[in-house]
Amino acid sequence: MSSGVWFQTLGLVIWLCFLGPTQGGKILVVPIDGSHWLSMKILVKELVHRGHEILVLVPETSMLIHGSEKYKTEIYPVPYTKDELEGKIHTIKEAVFVNEPGIFYLFQSVQHIVDFTMIQVKGCERLLNNQSLMTRLRGEGFDLLLTDPFLPCGSILAHTFSIPAVYFLSSLPCNLHLQANRCPSPVSYVPVYFSENTDVMTFPQRFKNMLMSFLQSYICKTLYAHFDDLVSRKFGDITTYKDLISHGAIWLIRYDFAFEWPRPLLPNMVLIGGLNCAKKAPLPADLEEFVDGSGDDGFIVFTLGSMVSNMPEEKAKQFFDAFRQIPQRVLWRYTGVPPKDVPKNVRLMKWLPQNDLLAHPKAKVFITHGGTHGIYEGICNAVPMLMFPLFGDQSDNVHRMVARGVAEKLTAHDVTTEKILDALNKLIYDKSYKENIVKLSQIHLDRPMEPLDLAVFWTEFVIKHKGAAHLRVAAHDLNWIQYHSLDVIGFLLIIVLTVLWVMIKCCLFFTRKFFSKGTSKRKSE
Amino acid sequence: MSSGVWFQTLGLVIWLCFLGPTQGGKILVVPIDGSHWLSMKILVKELVHRGHEILVLVPETSMLIHGSEKYKTEIYPVPYTKDELEGKIHTIKEAVFVNEPGIFYLFQSVQHIVDFTMIQVKGCERLLNNQSLMTRLRGEGFDLLLTDPFLPCGSILAHTFSIPAVYFLSSLPCNLHLQANRCPSPVSYVPVYFSENTDVMTFPQRFKNMLMSFLQSYICKTLYAHFDDLVSRKFGDITTYKDLISHGAIWLIRYDFAFEWPRPLLPNMVLIGGLNCAKKAPLPADLEEFVDGSGDDGFIVFTLGSMVSNMPEEKAKQFFDAFRQIPQRVLWRYTGVPPKDVPKNVRLMKWLPQNDLLAHPKAKVFITHGGTHGIYEGICNAVPMLMFPLFGDQSDNVHRMVARGVAEKLTAHDVTTEKILDALNKLIYDKSYKENIVKLSQIHLDRPMEPLDLAVFWTEFVIKHKGAAHLRVAAHDLNWIQYHSLDVIGFLLIIVLTVLWVMIKCCLFFTRKFFSKGTSKRKSE
Repeated sequence: MSSGVWFQTLGLVIWLCFLGPTQGGKILVVPIDGSHWLSMKILVKELVHRGHEILVLVPETSMLIHGSEKYKTEIYPVPYTKDELEGKIHTIKEAVFVNEPGIFYLFQSVQHIVDFTMIQVKGCERLLNNQSLMTRLRGEGFDLLLTDPFLPCGSILAHTFSIPAVYFLSSLPCNLHLQANRCPSPVSYVPVYFSENTDVMTFPQRFKNMLMSFLQSYICKTLYAHFDDLVSRKFGDITTYKDLISHGAIWLIRYDFAFEWPRPLLPNMVLIGGLNCAKKAPLPADLEEFVDGSGDDGFIVFTLGSMVSNMPEEKAKQFFDAFRQIPQRVLWRYTGVPPKDVPKNVRLMKWLPQNDLLAHPKAKVFITHGGTHGIYEGICNAVPMLMFPLFGDQSDNVHRMVARGVAEKLTAHDVTTEKILDALNKLIYDKSYKENIVKLSQIHLDRPMEPLDLAVFWTEFVIKHKGAAHLRVAAHDLNWIQYHSLDVIGFLLIIVLTVLWVMIKCCLFFTRKFFSKGTSKRKSE
Repeated sequence: MSSGVWFQTLGLVIWLCFLGPTQGGKILVVPIDGSHWLSMKILVKELVHRGHEILVLVPETSMLIHGSEKYKTEIYPVPYTKDELEGKIHTIKEAVFVNEPGIFYLFQSVQHIVDFTMIQVKGCERLLNNQSLMTRLRGEGFDLLLTDPFLPCGSILAHTFSIPAVYFLSSLPCNLHLQANRCPSPVSYVPVYFSENTDVMTFPQRFKNMLMSFLQSYICKTLYAHFDDLVSRKFGDITTYKDLISHGAIWLIRYDFAFEWPRPLLPNMVLIGGLNCAKKAPLPADLEEFVDGSGDDGFIVFTLGSMVSNMPEEKAKQFFDAFRQIPQRVLWRYTGVPPKDVPKNVRLMKWLPQNDLLAHPKAKVFITHGGTHGIYEGICNAVPMLMFPLFGDQSDNVHRMVARGVAEKLTAHDVTTEKILDALNKLIYDKSYKENIVKLSQIHLDRPMEPLDLAVFWTEFVIKHKGAAHLRVAAHDLNWIQYHSLDVIGFLLIIVLTVLWVMIKCCLFFTRKFFSKGTSKRKSE
């Protein structure tokens, strides 16, 4: 490292350290369980570090959100047990490995998500009816509410307490966040969810994109019906969840154009994609030894996200059989019953430090389900990916990575040993995958500011200025007809047609006059 | 200043110093004369400081672009004299003080601008035909071209030499930059030039906005006719200037939402509004003495931009008479013939350090023409403004400041002593103006990164990655019909109508069958 770079780093460290806690605010955090929380926690911890006082609201059934010395938590009762919640998640997971992707599965998934969110909506309702807790929270005088709008409780609380909301998310089902924030998304080049399009489309693809956008509108209504119901019961003047979240001051979106297709944005959308892969820790000694021992062949990291660490036995067998035939070592987060003859090059683990492993120079392939966290870690560390989309936005995420030539896709329902081997061989021995992901990684990491600093900055901005009204487009005050100027176009058409009609009438009148004169003249002659 | 803030500043300085020259690139700069150059020069100097090699192309008739020790310049001959150029500018300036704003003046202004740019287009053509210079420039192997696309020469050179272009601008007449970059601008809430609308519009205002957008399309064709002609003669495959500049890698736009209305953006648009008011120098001793001596009444800074330092005698008299009646001191950039009885509180100057003066705590009002540079300096330093829009985008700029309650507007053609006094009294003694501009200033200055650093970062990004293709929307490959999905909508309509037609035909067929059977049955009975 040159002395210039050392001084750069030193300067940056001093600057960041003493940028320090400037104005401590009181922040109420309403997180979403699962991987959503894992990246939000990074921001929460940084906000604590910068002197803000944080209270995290946690449902008693929480799986990944636990108390901490760094921030306060408030655990509230919900009308469902952990088993019931896990049952719902199990239904979603189980369907993944047996159903063929397609329109039927899409509708089934929507129903599963509705079932899953419905009980959480009930949990939220219980919280809102918890008068003593609500009074206490209101009395705290929070400056800001930080939430993931995947579930409605956070935005309802922000509106109830009249405090500005900062949204932290990857995306919302059927892009509700973009609709709510009135962000233009021309269907001619912005691919719709599940359309399997890129941003460059042929006529049939654009046709499909439009049809999918209609389908999306229908799905949207079904998905958010319980949210809308809760919101309209809670607030008389706001009747839909979309309207409620449209009041968000800042949208911190885990989005980056090394991953997503370029598209229009609005001023209050702050892109913080890759926030989760900044911090790297050294590997535990045994893991370090295992991966170092992989030699030139390197190793493969295999996880299917925080929710799925298991799969049906016959599916797992396909993987074990494939791994048996390759020289690479494999680290696999797998909590299922292992077969008797687990190959020697495979190490099964209940949990693994994904980002730290991917950062190791011998990491050759990342087998992932295509969640956004994993994808950003793959891009950050420039590791080609073998992808098994399971649910939600994952199939779209995977499609993007495959289109960029940095990944291969297989589907969980029909995976075979041959398919896995074929894909792994391509990813490891065809140099183009590595070259493409290195380029993508360079573009992703070459950014004017670290995503975490950006997220902190805008959160503090909203605290200091009590919102960010100057970034909110006036489109929010327009209905659909006004937004698309259809009333103005209609009025213009009426004027044009009236003028045309008057002109034609006049012409006809004078023509008749002229001819009738001519006729009477002839008659008189 | 607390010790924390000192360390912050120290850390930032060290970081910025040693971020230093990392990868020196070769940059060809094609600037636009006048105030456009004054802010571009700030970026050019910073790029030199960071180790880049810069060559600035200067026409021999230049007014404000001079050689420098810091960067190389190449002066090229043009087929017009400085007197001819100044004559064109004089025509524009003269019209300002006599013509009433309105549709007639708008068309006259367009003609003046066409006359002004036409001779510069000829200068550009001479440069392009200067074979020896062109060969030499091509041989230099530039990595990047930095230009203001207000005139076409820079983008033509970038395309000729096949190097990426970074555009540095405030805006282009009739928003050609937004059209070229395919940035959505819904007329329902994005005010069109000269519409005098804000982002919140009534129905009649939206109607006017749409009519103005039609007018703008016509003006656009007239304004850029010579550019289109030059471009289509130079490149067979590109026929309009809009198409040529659509290839720009990054658009560095002097734009900020403390000043502009919030609107959609595209990923390759980098907002660097306020870049020009970062650096402040101490005032010269005599000026310091003059403004310090203004006591509690403070002083007024009066300039009408780099192009206008003079006005007809009877207009100037209105100002002198007004200034005679106020307790504030006035610093006026005025090169006209002064009257015999210049008031004692007025100091006339050929040039004045505008930003340094506005930064003085005793600055009470800034009398300005509403150019973007001056406006940002007014906002930075939180000084309320008395505005006299002269030409171009200034009337829109002024309208925005007035709508935000930080400025008063007067028109140059009918200014009187009474009007000036009335406006100054409002700005000085009605506290709301100062309060509003302080809020605006705080929002403007509270930003994650300094505009100059952002401009440097993206310029270097384009050098390192040979462009920024990942930020370019796919809309560029679509024509107007495809972009608005009119072909898809048309096709859908055909399908729906065909299905309807077939259904109606079937119904009619079976109805007829049914009735004919009934009739024949009745007949047989």
